[in-house]
Amino acid sequence: MDNNGPYIKGFRFCGIHAGIKEEVLDLALIVSDVPSRVAALFTKNRLKAAPVLLDMERVKGGVCRAIVANSGCANACTGQEGLEDALLMARWTAKALSLPEEEVLVASTGVIGERLPMDRIRDAIPRAVQGLSADGFLEAARAIMTTDTRPKVSYRRLTLNGYKVTVAGMAKGAGMIEPNMATMLCFIVSDVACDLNRLKRLLRGAVEHSFNAISVDGDMSTNDTVILLANGASGMPELRVGSPEIEAFQEALEGITGELAKMLVMDGEGATKLIEVRVEGARSRDDARKIAYRISRSPLVKTAFFGEDVNWGRIMAAIGSSGVDVDPTRIGIWYGDVQVVRKGMGTGLNEEAKAIIKRREFTLRVELGLGGEDFILYTCDLSPDYVTINASYTT
Amino acid sequence: MDNNGPYIKGFRFCGIHAGIKEEVLDLALIVSDVPSRVAALFTKNRLKAAPVLLDMERVKGGVCRAIVANSGCANACTGQEGLEDALLMARWTAKALSLPEEEVLVASTGVIGERLPMDRIRDAIPRAVQGLSADGFLEAARAIMTTDTRPKVSYRRLTLNGYKVTVAGMAKGAGMIEPNMATMLCFIVSDVACDLNRLKRLLRGAVEHSFNAISVDGDMSTNDTVILLANGASGMPELRVGSPEIEAFQEALEGITGELAKMLVMDGEGATKLIEVRVEGARSRDDARKIAYRISRSPLVKTAFFGEDVNWGRIMAAIGSSGVDVDPTRIGIWYGDVQVVRKGMGTGLNEEAKAIIKRREFTLRVELGLGGEDFILYTCDLSPDYVTINASYTT
Repeated sequence: MDNNGPYIKGFRFCGIHAGIKEEVLDLALIVSDVPSRVAALFTKNRLKAAPVLLDMERVKGGVCRAIVANSGCANACTGQEGLEDALLMARWTAKALSLPEEEVLVASTGVIGERLPMDRIRDAIPRAVQGLSADGFLEAARAIMTTDTRPKVSYRRLTLNGYKVTVAGMAKGAGMIEPNMATMLCFIVSDVACDLNRLKRLLRGAVEHSFNAISVDGDMSTNDTVILLANGASGMPELRVGSPEIEAFQEALEGITGELAKMLVMDGEGATKLIEVRVEGARSRDDARKIAYRISRSPLVKTAFFGEDVNWGRIMAAIGSSGVDVDPTRIGIWYGDVQVVRKGMGTGLNEEAKAIIKRREFTLRVELGLGGEDFILYTCDLSPDYVTINASYTT
Repeated sequence: MDNNGPYIKGFRFCGIHAGIKEEVLDLALIVSDVPSRVAALFTKNRLKAAPVLLDMERVKGGVCRAIVANSGCANACTGQEGLEDALLMARWTAKALSLPEEEVLVASTGVIGERLPMDRIRDAIPRAVQGLSADGFLEAARAIMTTDTRPKVSYRRLTLNGYKVTVAGMAKGAGMIEPNMATMLCFIVSDVACDLNRLKRLLRGAVEHSFNAISVDGDMSTNDTVILLANGASGMPELRVGSPEIEAFQEALEGITGELAKMLVMDGEGATKLIEVRVEGARSRDDARKIAYRISRSPLVKTAFFGEDVNWGRIMAAIGSSGVDVDPTRIGIWYGDVQVVRKGMGTGLNEEAKAIIKRREFTLRVELGLGGEDFILYTCDLSPDYVTINASYTT
């Protein structure tokens, strides 16, 4: 990657220290120099933070010029006042940029239940506007971090019908992501030209196999937000349905969301391992999903991963308690290519499997032998550091 | 309590070292000198261990003379051979005691997926029979421990219609209990006289508000077992429906299961605090239950308990992600008697709440403001020790 992050035509970025947190960058600004099409997906948590409620309305217009995002305060559980704070944050940004207010989106992440320090944000926004730069992508990615240990960015350069196009995404997550409801923010920008309905569909597809494979709808935080901007500044004509170009764009988008999702898991608090959990041979995708999540959520399974302990009994117990009607005598379990369970019983290959589980990344595969449906998700281990980090987050 | 545990007429107990584990007691025997009525409840995990499958059949007879239980090996995921091992364990016990084989129940707890060391068990059973003693209750309670740090026993003495009656329970749990699927075993014995249907109903009621308030059906381990024996050796006539005596017995039984359940939570691996989670004002008991479990399962909430951090935002996020349709503006949250959330927003009393959360036991109360149903459950905090203990359990 370029030293300062990717360059995307018609976009400028900035990350500054607004004083919401101590010392570090805590306010990000993303601006499109021309009106950009926007698709977005938001948390399904019943308690939605103020910026989410605001954005859900605003993206209906399909046009966005700027995103202003802060870390250090989630502006969630802040009532009517919180909603007014989010509105003001957008208004000040719009004013400093001379843009229509409705074309500014807002995102927040951090502690729930506290009001934003509006004086500092009011002071910071003009500074952020002055600091906007075509190579400020990485800086903006840094400004949305909370307990993340590093910024998460991924991008692709494509040539579509002779036009050079860039797609670039930044994300923040941490927490153990799922089921821990740490806020996930992801902003993807591109100078591609794409009609609105197609853009929405492409985003849904990309999220389904990336962020939704690490965090299930019902368990999202109050603030989770994924926004995709496509401003067409590459000068290309709009992507046509069924064209090789749209497939190339889709592949780039899915590559980026997939990479970012894995980065989120690997930067889970205290995580030392990335585990691909594949549940195969289920009667339905939903059954496979339930079992994959049950395994990935079990603290007993996750601590065994951390301890590099081939404790397949805990995986069997998780499968059995998933609520899915399984047949124990058909179950097979593999670590990498080493089968540790056949027909519901141990194969005795625990030592061989131990070599797999010692790796930083490995696949855990469960074969149910009941049908043809599967589900894949990514998870991390549970280390003592996770507890230490989260025991003292607000204090 | 007596030095060696309670004395219950017509019952003898023994706990010995059979060599399934190293050095410690690992085989328990409970014997009734006369045929005893038996009620039992078992795990709803789809993958049931061999002893559970065996006992489920045997308790249908309603009569039990002995329970043989081991720690160190769960005899789960062991297929047809495992079932034969459980049968043999009962057969050897029946033979050594000259009892009908069908009146012997079996329980196992420990590592999943390994066969029982049958040679050692065959050698141990006659020794256990020889060691049987009226005051061996506590010894038996020690023999079923796995990662438990102490034996868990609770008992009551009653006078019913002039007859002295004793009810005594032992349990083992550890793991963080729920949602971690550590095996829970509980054996309750009494010299009360009670008809079979009444006994079953009383056990169901007692478990509903104790073990089921710490561990929900769908999440049980492969081996969870609760057995209640009533041998009538007190000489009393059978308890009559609607009598004050049956109410006194019920109260004693519920007192015992309640105490044992709390002991299980407090002995959860690495647990430092016992938290009563009360969800009130729900539209249905099921809604209240869902929210109570969502809160109690959240690693973010549990680590905040450990860190004595009044992080009510994590509780709000858990409520919102429970799948229950809630109205944020009606939610109130209390630590003890300190209200930290009113109408979905912070009250600013975090310092006052901190004094509560620093206690070893406290109540977290959530008022939803939607109806009249509630649910109470007990949970513990999540400490770094939990991870350390579980990362190396089988190795």
